[in-house]
Amino acid sequence: MKKEQRFKYLSYPQAVFVVGTYDGERKPNVMTVALGGMCSHNPPYFAISVRSATYSHQNIVARQAFTVNIPSKKYLKHVDYVGLVSGRNTDKFAVCGLTAVAGELVDAPYIDEFPTVAECRLHHTIDLGSHTMFIGEIVSIKGEEPVLADLSHLMPNLTDIPDMVKAEGIVYAFAGDGRYYCGLGEPLERAYSVGRQLIE
Amino acid sequence: MKKEQRFKYLSYPQAVFVVGTYDGERKPNVMTVALGGMCSHNPPYFAISVRSATYSHQNIVARQAFTVNIPSKKYLKHVDYVGLVSGRNTDKFAVCGLTAVAGELVDAPYIDEFPTVAECRLHHTIDLGSHTMFIGEIVSIKGEEPVLADLSHLMPNLTDIPDMVKAEGIVYAFAGDGRYYCGLGEPLERAYSVGRQLIE
Repeated sequence: MKKEQRFKYLSYPQAVFVVGTYDGERKPNVMTVALGGMCSHNPPYFAISVRSATYSHQNIVARQAFTVNIPSKKYLKHVDYVGLVSGRNTDKFAVCGLTAVAGELVDAPYIDEFPTVAECRLHHTIDLGSHTMFIGEIVSIKGEEPVLADLSHLMPNLTDIPDMVKAEGIVYAFAGDGRYYCGLGEPLERAYSVGRQLIE
Repeated sequence: MKKEQRFKYLSYPQAVFVVGTYDGERKPNVMTVALGGMCSHNPPYFAISVRSATYSHQNIVARQAFTVNIPSKKYLKHVDYVGLVSGRNTDKFAVCGLTAVAGELVDAPYIDEFPTVAECRLHHTIDLGSHTMFIGEIVSIKGEEPVLADLSHLMPNLTDIPDMVKAEGIVYAFAGDGRYYCGLGEPLERAYSVGRQLIE
């Protein structure tokens, strides 16, 4: 039996991203973003939605760039912290003891310690009410060597892809009595494969 | 040591959605969507990116509506299947033995068996190259009673929210030698809380 939910927030396992930007003085900032993800393959676009009052919003508009940093389990405390305070009056990199590295191709810093980072050049800005959606073209993705997989048996270019089980990827989900970061469970079934049982 | 990835696809634990639409004859169709998620809170908007060649693309343009259906672990085979074949020449609901229920507020069907479903009214259409992004306003969310949680201690309206551990939510991730559906691991830390240790 289905029941209507009053608060219109869809509950599903959400990805967790930390977005890196520079401010006017080139001070690096980072912020946790709950709303975002890949939104096109060719060109490779990544979308993030950010409230207009945030320091990161102002930085992205000024620098026309941002990075997307994928955390692993060991940085949970930092991921949560950078979503709770503003970079306007805090040096979040310093508090967390994380290292800001200047992007090679865009005017934004990435987090050296995180296992996967992407540099994005701003392409589209869409006002959606409480949030602004920034769509950036992914111009570089870097992964930490110990967790990289070679999947060229699936597609010729699919090398050096971070393995999310090895990288200890995390998701955000409503669970139990609140909102939690959860780890990944074991791989259950192979995608683009298990469904073939239903094809005659 | 970080290494550049050749194929510009960012690897992270991705949410898995099945999108429901009606065609011109009101035949219900469903399709797995890898790219999408909530993109604003107020109004509550949900974005999905779909290739223009798909039957679902044509249906969304015609009906100006779609549903988002969140699967649980037991429907993995169906989730994978509806991403592999086209609704142009297949009745995917029939093959899967799933039940299409007409949306109450929009011209699109949802999957009765899935624990969480949302009805979306199309608001923005953005051409992004290989994919078209459709942004819909969520006008209804329904959850299956056995998995609903009352989180009104966090926010007054936060009742009847599906618990993703109980609902056995799944994610898509690059892992091991390929692409897998993974279950959720145990909740690790409480969000909006664990990071407070770093606030003086």
